[in-house]
Amino acid sequence: MDQIAYVNGSFVPLTEAKVSVLDRGFLFADGIYEVAAVLEGKLIDNASHLARLERSVGEIGLALPETVERIQEIQRELIARNHLVNGMVYLQATRGADSGRDFAFPKDVKPTLVMFTSVKDIVGAESAKTGIAVITVPDLRWVRRDIKSVALLAQVLAKQAAAEAGAGEAWMIEDGKVTEGGSSSAFILTKDDVLVTRQNSTAILPGCTRKAVVALAEERQLRVEERPFTVEEALAAKEAFVTSATVFVQAVVTIDGKPVANGKPGPMTDRLREIYIDFAKATAQ
Amino acid sequence: MDQIAYVNGSFVPLTEAKVSVLDRGFLFADGIYEVAAVLEGKLIDNASHLARLERSVGEIGLALPETVERIQEIQRELIARNHLVNGMVYLQATRGADSGRDFAFPKDVKPTLVMFTSVKDIVGAESAKTGIAVITVPDLRWVRRDIKSVALLAQVLAKQAAAEAGAGEAWMIEDGKVTEGGSSSAFILTKDDVLVTRQNSTAILPGCTRKAVVALAEERQLRVEERPFTVEEALAAKEAFVTSATVFVQAVVTIDGKPVANGKPGPMTDRLREIYIDFAKATAQ
Repeated sequence: MDQIAYVNGSFVPLTEAKVSVLDRGFLFADGIYEVAAVLEGKLIDNASHLARLERSVGEIGLALPETVERIQEIQRELIARNHLVNGMVYLQATRGADSGRDFAFPKDVKPTLVMFTSVKDIVGAESAKTGIAVITVPDLRWVRRDIKSVALLAQVLAKQAAAEAGAGEAWMIEDGKVTEGGSSSAFILTKDDVLVTRQNSTAILPGCTRKAVVALAEERQLRVEERPFTVEEALAAKEAFVTSATVFVQAVVTIDGKPVANGKPGPMTDRLREIYIDFAKATAQ
Repeated sequence: MDQIAYVNGSFVPLTEAKVSVLDRGFLFADGIYEVAAVLEGKLIDNASHLARLERSVGEIGLALPETVERIQEIQRELIARNHLVNGMVYLQATRGADSGRDFAFPKDVKPTLVMFTSVKDIVGAESAKTGIAVITVPDLRWVRRDIKSVALLAQVLAKQAAAEAGAGEAWMIEDGKVTEGGSSSAFILTKDDVLVTRQNSTAILPGCTRKAVVALAEERQLRVEERPFTVEEALAAKEAFVTSATVFVQAVVTIDGKPVANGKPGPMTDRLREIYIDFAKATAQ
């Protein structure tokens, strides 16, 4: 059965869901996106995603074409129409399609809103049991990585390099430190049992799952340090993992082919994954 | 009359020209573009644009869906179908639309090719007589600016800032030096009659019009230095100008509100503009 997508007010089969070639998302990457997980038909940590959406569009002076309340209604309608149990809802807002192509913002053009779903068993993912390999690549991205824009070519190239190396993620390196993964936040657990993840700044995306995991860890009296770390620190750590809306908490077992600790998912990672899944289910809406 | 666009093998009205919401140009800015000028129905410096297109797609591992010879045929057919006399042909190739959204390159997906035209009297543009104001903004772009990708959000924000300031271009500044304009190359003519423009590297796009202007200047025994320059140097210069396929050679008369020399287009800029237009007409195809 064909998936149903949402495009500017209409629910249409995904295979027929289209935008103008003049859409500024297509011509200029002039748009913002979010991905929210779905468990048992309910949205996970969605208020956090919608708050970040509002922040991102504000940073580029883009007015959403719908209220976030209405966006959440559409997310739910898409879940229902697609009978989605476990997976994700993707949403993208762009500055719309003008009658031609000009860099400066167009006037009197309605922004574009596109949404669609995909199926994924995030909780039961095999990679959660095995952990993933990570490679490192230079961080080629622009200066405002705190804005969740669709200008993702650097991340595409990073994650393609990972795929070609048989790895599940690429950690991006700048000034000798890990910034984050191509589509995830990076964490380590040091030998002193301190969880380390880079502090939010313009250098990284403020991860929603990252934020929730830090809060859940601190509630449990775990020591968390928000600071950059090196690959050497990660390789000397007890554990390493990544977080994102589409993997939750995911062990990293090798970096550039070298094992992290014994090369298996660590107990703290597994525990944080369970804690996050419990939180997700308890707060799903 | 509606403009005719080209989308993946078909000529369609521009208002009906669409791509899938899953197109990687829309989702990831995973695409490359070029803009070639048209004078009197003929393409200007097009071999240079197509060579740069081939280089850009190669740098991101994207196979063009058509040969450059066929692309040039389509450019010409679009000019004919739209009865275009003076203006531009835009073309964009993306990595196509897969059945879902995944960062790594999709397999067995045909790249997208979109092309359309627009009308502009480049030779007779009023701004060529008056010159333009330029503002400066920090260069927020990614590391590989030599690739002409559609990940243009930083340029959009730069040129919007210029538009809001009533300026015609934004010069992007990095480490105290001008990299280039939001959609043009930057030149100055020093007090010693040396033309200065930044050397090609990953820090700037290798401008086709920049290249032609440098070659035309050198043929005429003008002294050209390819090196970065500061805004202070530009303000102390005899003349400043920008080059691009859609403005050719365009005088810069103020920078951040301060006049360059007497605040009027200079004679060398006017002369290089004439020389470029002569070259363009003589080599148009």
